[in-house]
Amino acid sequence: MIDKIAEASLLFDFYGQMLTKKQQEVMRLYHEENYSLSEIGEEFSISRQGVHDTLKKAENALTEYEAKLGLVNKFENSKKVIGKIEASIEKMMEENNGDEKLCGKLADIKNIIETLNQ
Amino acid sequence: MIDKIAEASLLFDFYGQMLTKKQQEVMRLYHEENYSLSEIGEEFSISRQGVHDTLKKAENALTEYEAKLGLVNKFENSKKVIGKIEASIEKMMEENNGDEKLCGKLADIKNIIETLNQ
Repeated sequence: MIDKIAEASLLFDFYGQMLTKKQQEVMRLYHEENYSLSEIGEEFSISRQGVHDTLKKAENALTEYEAKLGLVNKFENSKKVIGKIEASIEKMMEENNGDEKLCGKLADIKNIIETLNQ
Repeated sequence: MIDKIAEASLLFDFYGQMLTKKQQEVMRLYHEENYSLSEIGEEFSISRQGVHDTLKKAENALTEYEAKLGLVNKFENSKKVIGKIEASIEKMMEENNGDEKLCGKLADIKNIIETLNQ
């Protein structure tokens, strides 16, 4: 299980664009720049409690997007599938390491597959 | 370029869950069941114009989600990448069609890759 902060960051990566500019900036300062609630409050001239509420509201919105669209879940699944494929290709390259042409093609496929995770 | 109706359907597949239940139902009747505006109006006891406005509003929301999240665009791109990989694998299978063990493994990889498109 990923911890709550890592989870919020991952949701933010996927759905951050759906939040208001202010919510985005508060989340970014808190999760990426490690600002404290009080420091963010100073930036925006709002109370510590106001920052806390903004964060909570943003996180709830992100959780709701994930419940509806499930992108993080899909991404995690496709990462697993891609990992499996890469392992199979590596094994085939080992088993055929005398065949340069074949190994070159397998390496090409592995490189293309990796772009799917971006 | 895909036509406007196909585009609306594709956007609906990806982001339909983000719409209200009423918007979802109106879009479904219009795009999947091919109801006319008047027929939908009868279902919901609203005017033909009201149905038109609901559809327009729903389609605008879907277009905005795509502008922010770009899932349809990503999906189209990954479909292209997966198609390329499949073509490479098929070519390798042709070139190594005497090697049953290798071809079996390549076929396995191809099957797993196909699941990424779902």
